[in-house]
Amino acid sequence: MDPVKKYVQEQKDRFVKELAGFLRIPSVSAKSERREACRQAADFLLQELGRLGFSTSLHETPGHPIVTASRMDDPAQPTVLIYGHYDVQPEEPLDLWTSPPFEPRIVNGNLYARGASDDKGQLYAHIKAMETLIRTEGKLPVNVTFLLEGEEEIASTHLEAFIEENRETLIRTEGKLPVNVTFLLEGEEEIASTHLEAFIEENREILRGDVAVISDSSQYGPGMPAICYGLRGICADEIRVQGANRDLHSGSYGGAVPNPCNVLCEIIAKLKDETGRIQIPGFYEDVLELEAWEREAFAALAGDDEDFRRQLGVAGLHGEEGYTTLERKWARPTLDVNGLFGGYSGEGAKTIIPAWAGAKITMRLVPNQQPDKIRHLFREYVRRVAPAYVTVSFVDHSGGGPVRIPRDAPFMNTAVQALEYGFGRKPVFIREGGSIPVVSTLERKLGLKTLLLGFGLPDDNAHAPDEKFSLADYERGILTSARFLQLCAKTAGAET
Amino acid sequence: MDPVKKYVQEQKDRFVKELAGFLRIPSVSAKSERREACRQAADFLLQELGRLGFSTSLHETPGHPIVTASRMDDPAQPTVLIYGHYDVQPEEPLDLWTSPPFEPRIVNGNLYARGASDDKGQLYAHIKAMETLIRTEGKLPVNVTFLLEGEEEIASTHLEAFIEENRETLIRTEGKLPVNVTFLLEGEEEIASTHLEAFIEENREILRGDVAVISDSSQYGPGMPAICYGLRGICADEIRVQGANRDLHSGSYGGAVPNPCNVLCEIIAKLKDETGRIQIPGFYEDVLELEAWEREAFAALAGDDEDFRRQLGVAGLHGEEGYTTLERKWARPTLDVNGLFGGYSGEGAKTIIPAWAGAKITMRLVPNQQPDKIRHLFREYVRRVAPAYVTVSFVDHSGGGPVRIPRDAPFMNTAVQALEYGFGRKPVFIREGGSIPVVSTLERKLGLKTLLLGFGLPDDNAHAPDEKFSLADYERGILTSARFLQLCAKTAGAET
Repeated sequence: MDPVKKYVQEQKDRFVKELAGFLRIPSVSAKSERREACRQAADFLLQELGRLGFSTSLHETPGHPIVTASRMDDPAQPTVLIYGHYDVQPEEPLDLWTSPPFEPRIVNGNLYARGASDDKGQLYAHIKAMETLIRTEGKLPVNVTFLLEGEEEIASTHLEAFIEENRETLIRTEGKLPVNVTFLLEGEEEIASTHLEAFIEENREILRGDVAVISDSSQYGPGMPAICYGLRGICADEIRVQGANRDLHSGSYGGAVPNPCNVLCEIIAKLKDETGRIQIPGFYEDVLELEAWEREAFAALAGDDEDFRRQLGVAGLHGEEGYTTLERKWARPTLDVNGLFGGYSGEGAKTIIPAWAGAKITMRLVPNQQPDKIRHLFREYVRRVAPAYVTVSFVDHSGGGPVRIPRDAPFMNTAVQALEYGFGRKPVFIREGGSIPVVSTLERKLGLKTLLLGFGLPDDNAHAPDEKFSLADYERGILTSARFLQLCAKTAGAET
Repeated sequence: MDPVKKYVQEQKDRFVKELAGFLRIPSVSAKSERREACRQAADFLLQELGRLGFSTSLHETPGHPIVTASRMDDPAQPTVLIYGHYDVQPEEPLDLWTSPPFEPRIVNGNLYARGASDDKGQLYAHIKAMETLIRTEGKLPVNVTFLLEGEEEIASTHLEAFIEENRETLIRTEGKLPVNVTFLLEGEEEIASTHLEAFIEENREILRGDVAVISDSSQYGPGMPAICYGLRGICADEIRVQGANRDLHSGSYGGAVPNPCNVLCEIIAKLKDETGRIQIPGFYEDVLELEAWEREAFAALAGDDEDFRRQLGVAGLHGEEGYTTLERKWARPTLDVNGLFGGYSGEGAKTIIPAWAGAKITMRLVPNQQPDKIRHLFREYVRRVAPAYVTVSFVDHSGGGPVRIPRDAPFMNTAVQALEYGFGRKPVFIREGGSIPVVSTLERKLGLKTLLLGFGLPDDNAHAPDEKFSLADYERGILTSARFLQLCAKTAGAET
């Protein structure tokens, strides 16, 4: 047995226990009362990486802190940037969890906890791969730059600012970029990386590298490792409709004053037609249509729609006409209400005309749609269809660009081999409907192509109750990450 | 000064203090955790009426208890049935109250508290009128049957059952109906009288009388006493739209599965057209159109729409085309969403496709629409417009019929004189947009016409934060009630 596999075998129980400790920290970036927990998660990573011989730093942002850590073992070797996020989605609705979301529990070989798969578990697999290489080989085979944030679920904007600011300092003091091993840990991934873009912009030199690796997506299915070459972007917004300056008795006033709940529904109903087509003018203008080879490849991977429907327990599937389920999920833009609120939602009835109503909305974007342009078009349209007898306002919940990575990107073949080693199967090439805003930022700001090596599974319940991560996949992820670095060193000359 | 006015003058500070004690009881009928408080409010009334020499009873129902109390001072005189409710609306949103809703406070001659006007304050004015008559005249001039419930805001169904059940017993034991003074106190008015109809049906004899009086509406304006001759009915329902069996990641699933929040909005948008016309087939079938004299009378009472708009702080007024503001509020049916809920409504963003969404809806009905028929038409239509890829269900929040009382109803002129005595001004004839389900029940089950003598003001914030009741109106209400009974005795021969 090779030393890496042997070490992982011997240490795997401890690896699980330590991951559980990380999962116990309720680092929900969207909630201000969990600010301290986010900091605790950042500290956890700082200490772990410090123990592995990394130079670590905690960088304050207006939101959750960014952690960087670097280990530069061989200037002659390339630098791999590994990104992850220590923040998690809100845990609600609590009553649908089988066990408490921040008390990790193992059932049938799966570890259940908020963040188990998205993204603490996958991120931690990379850290344990570092430990494995350092303990078995005495050092890392290449230089690694980890970029692990805490505002992914709220749109990381602090990280980009940090990167830009520290660029020159780092070149002067270290003098040997891009061959450093640098961990960059940020704490805002689960809320859409509000501060990441600025941080990257301002700290470009710390993050310079040859390729980026992110494990925040999933395999195509159990035992079907995958490389994800496309991600949807996101544009998150909130509509508020204001009627009267207070709740009104629906008997005394009803019929004569506008009802913001009714009006909000009327506005939302105008956003799509009955075929699922979004009605915002210009919305589809920049959409890159699927290529013929992609439609063929998707068709080959397609599951059974009836199985999919049954598994979700939904009365029927529904999406944009003219596209298959996989095409709708991976390569078509969407507009979904994530939350509706206004008036009385408690027990029984309350006969009021509410003063206001609101809806949280996310639009998933595909190449080459841009979040800022889409937000502008969305708001223009909502303002236009909203009746003059109410007042409409918006809350920006930020966004991130869509991504498409060419099949001939640097180290793509290396990743294929590493996954084959870790999972015992050649990976398939897929796209993913979710958004990882940092991927487009890394490309725009650092010119880095990202390899998306998903260790999770599609049914890991990311963003939902009973989130889980398979312990076998955790181990396979550790092996894949370690092998990838080994192969990067060996094949550096050939591929770069 | 006549003895009634003198007594009220002397006792008014105590009358206010005692009302404040009643208002301190948080008898929110819609909330199960306030069950005990509803019982406490019923007990408060029981004790108060017992001290005034009434025979009192507490009647259990599946919901909040009904209290009856009777005083039969002169079998030769007619019986007046006075109805009121001891339950109040939920106090939310708490943060918009200037002072806590169940800690009564006097500011500028107004008493602020949940229930101050709707309906504890107005009901209590009648009780203090009883005290005034008993202390000044030694007895009541006529027989009085009070019917005060605790499920008005949830649709009283227990009261009707009680009335039917006790009918024969009461005739046998008392032998002198309809000339009893009977208080009937029920505790469910603020949730639309779920148990009242059954109670009345089953206890008809206890409640037999010559005329009913209810003070649960308002004057037309400050110093403009009014008799309300029409009320809207109500049909309260809730729509639930179910999509998948759990919340889904809006990235991984978005575009391929139905979103119950979007679908709910689409359904609600189809309930009305852009002119405010309700689209449910058959909805307007039984609507009694306004008569010419009513449109003229309403026009004479009409306020300035721009003032009305400004006072509400709303961008514009909106209602059914072809009708004035007063006509829309008093005599046209409505469909209002009272609450919208589904998915994430907390701070920040949560990128999910919610598993379900819901809306609480009330339709205000006008003569001769019937709640059961309207509920049926509503549900049929919603089921028809709902797409097959979601599951729709409903929650019945009950209802009550609309009312129109003829100008020549018994004791109508007596009420005019009593209001002139209490308020120093002749009353105007108005309608009211709110619903008092018991009024139609009293007519259907007991053949009683109801005189709606509103002591409150239109801006008392019933069903909203900072509910209030003017102390001057409280006093005027006491005087009006006492005078009404005196005049009933004197004019009994002439009018009945």
